[in-house]
Amino acid sequence: MAPWKAARVGDPVKLIDTPALVLDLDAFERNLRRMADALAGRGVRLRAHAKSHKTPEIAHRQIALGAAGICCQKVSEAAIFVEAGIQDVLVSNEVVGASKIEQLMRLAKRARLGVLVDHPSQVHALAVAAASAQAPLDVYVEVNVSNRCGVAPGEDAAALAVQVAEHPPLRFAGLQVYHGPAQHLRSPAERAAAIAATVDSARVTRDLIVARGLACPRITGAGSGTFLLERDSGVFNEIQAGSYIFMDRDYADNQLGESDLRFEHALFVRTTVMSRSTPARAVVDAGLKASSVDSGLPRVWQRPDLRYVKASDEHGVIETPAGAGLELGDALMLVPGHCDPTVNLYDEIVCIRGDRVEAIWPVSARGALL
Amino acid sequence: MAPWKAARVGDPVKLIDTPALVLDLDAFERNLRRMADALAGRGVRLRAHAKSHKTPEIAHRQIALGAAGICCQKVSEAAIFVEAGIQDVLVSNEVVGASKIEQLMRLAKRARLGVLVDHPSQVHALAVAAASAQAPLDVYVEVNVSNRCGVAPGEDAAALAVQVAEHPPLRFAGLQVYHGPAQHLRSPAERAAAIAATVDSARVTRDLIVARGLACPRITGAGSGTFLLERDSGVFNEIQAGSYIFMDRDYADNQLGESDLRFEHALFVRTTVMSRSTPARAVVDAGLKASSVDSGLPRVWQRPDLRYVKASDEHGVIETPAGAGLELGDALMLVPGHCDPTVNLYDEIVCIRGDRVEAIWPVSARGALL
Repeated sequence: MAPWKAARVGDPVKLIDTPALVLDLDAFERNLRRMADALAGRGVRLRAHAKSHKTPEIAHRQIALGAAGICCQKVSEAAIFVEAGIQDVLVSNEVVGASKIEQLMRLAKRARLGVLVDHPSQVHALAVAAASAQAPLDVYVEVNVSNRCGVAPGEDAAALAVQVAEHPPLRFAGLQVYHGPAQHLRSPAERAAAIAATVDSARVTRDLIVARGLACPRITGAGSGTFLLERDSGVFNEIQAGSYIFMDRDYADNQLGESDLRFEHALFVRTTVMSRSTPARAVVDAGLKASSVDSGLPRVWQRPDLRYVKASDEHGVIETPAGAGLELGDALMLVPGHCDPTVNLYDEIVCIRGDRVEAIWPVSARGALL
Repeated sequence: MAPWKAARVGDPVKLIDTPALVLDLDAFERNLRRMADALAGRGVRLRAHAKSHKTPEIAHRQIALGAAGICCQKVSEAAIFVEAGIQDVLVSNEVVGASKIEQLMRLAKRARLGVLVDHPSQVHALAVAAASAQAPLDVYVEVNVSNRCGVAPGEDAAALAVQVAEHPPLRFAGLQVYHGPAQHLRSPAERAAAIAATVDSARVTRDLIVARGLACPRITGAGSGTFLLERDSGVFNEIQAGSYIFMDRDYADNQLGESDLRFEHALFVRTTVMSRSTPARAVVDAGLKASSVDSGLPRVWQRPDLRYVKASDEHGVIETPAGAGLELGDALMLVPGHCDPTVNLYDEIVCIRGDRVEAIWPVSARGALL
């Protein structure tokens, strides 16, 4: 952790030390509102995905605008959000191992906690721990629709749901049906086809569970790239979008259909030109330790003439055409390729409004991997 | 930061919570010794690159085995190492901006500090700050050999050196000549060709500087992939290797020549199988927030039958052939694709010897981006 801060509340934006993770509060608040409006009155609620931001200040704002709670991917993330006062947390992931399950049950005594299962042995381990802790736990069966975790849709998933229901204090809460790769299919038609199949898998599985006499209250999933499809599916009743608050370059590369919502870039890596020894390139101080490149390189914000072409650990190389006018010490804003792992590189988000720093928010769950 | 620790000193390795960054101390110590032996008695010293490890415990061990000091890429990293008692630190990078230069000069009052320049305006800014702080500063001219930072070899670099020498208390300390991309050229012949050209650039520039009546005491650069070439060049007298202590998958993919040293994998991401719902794949709990994928995916250690084929934020998908015998809850060790940005994801390194946790080292400069 750096021994000094990139900025303080009240600083002019131009004095922010770099590289720094910067949130444009006006754009962020418009994104929050746009999502709330998109779900209002439709019987579909938001469970905001906190793996994107890892920041309690943001979770509280999402809940204030109607989110039912948050989801996250790690028990240690859940612990940080419960500690910050979030009362409804779904670990939208399988949790394996005695020590992690023990931590999970500790949290289940303080807040409403949920978790996924995709294997009978997980149900057994959770049931033993929940009985010992004497705490309820919402358990969702994860249905595989994109070859990562999850059991096969249909009979396999229904059988696992029945197993959960047979083990109080586990509560069978419903199905997690998330198609990750569909979020970044570029054309609306491709996304629609992938989610149509996803919805079918969810519906078939739900109907089988109901036919066995079980309630299947919640069908949860979706992300920022496809959530309108799940919203309008008649099957999903909970949306786990996360990136909509920030909008990274990878999401912006999706082509939008006529009815798709346009979220704005709100998250940036502020960077400084630190080498300008030839006219053809500028080197900036934000490389791959400042902006995760797993989903491609960042884009230079509002400077279509500049191309960020190469990231090394601590450097970014920017191609500069003649007349680019970029000087040593000039600042640029980068739109990260992928917001989630970029946020995970920072201890704080510098929140700006106009040309002033309005707040500094700790990324409290940064590095919470366990 | 996770609200609990992955491990404690004395724990059996099999109880380490995952994902965790694990250092095999026996392999690490052999790597340290191998580097020290390779440089001993050759008039070429090691300035260990601390951007790889960001860990004072490791820097002290490198210095105890003969390293002259460390280098790092950020002023905030330098501050952490000076605070930890390291007395000779080169920021092997350009430093631009009044606040960063002010921090640099604060450190220059407490330890021997060096920095690079590649532009006359940087020399001017450093000279003003050094005069104001009344502290000496070693200044190296960076010579461009791989199209990142640095001035052109020859006259441009020599002119900048003269400018530095004319501005006490700046001390012209020599040349930084680092060819980053050459470190990962796969064949020994390609690396030799790239470094031969690098050495020529260094020699020509040095000779021009000396011809102008200036001493050029230090020619520094090189990395873990090429340092034997620079060692034997007759021109370089300082080596900035960093990754040799850990050895990542990317370095291991280099083909070695007959005389090349073989460093061992010492750094691993320990991970657990968290989903095993089909025979064809296992999903582990270490994705791209646990192991940086900028230089490719991790390799599964000592399990050539298993292939890590896909990373998402919190998941890794491993192809499992029939008979792989991998069960839910089983642990694997991954060799990260790229050690530097992977270390930067963790607050602590879990140091093991045999089947026990021997130490926990804080990654004190994790996230020190400024």
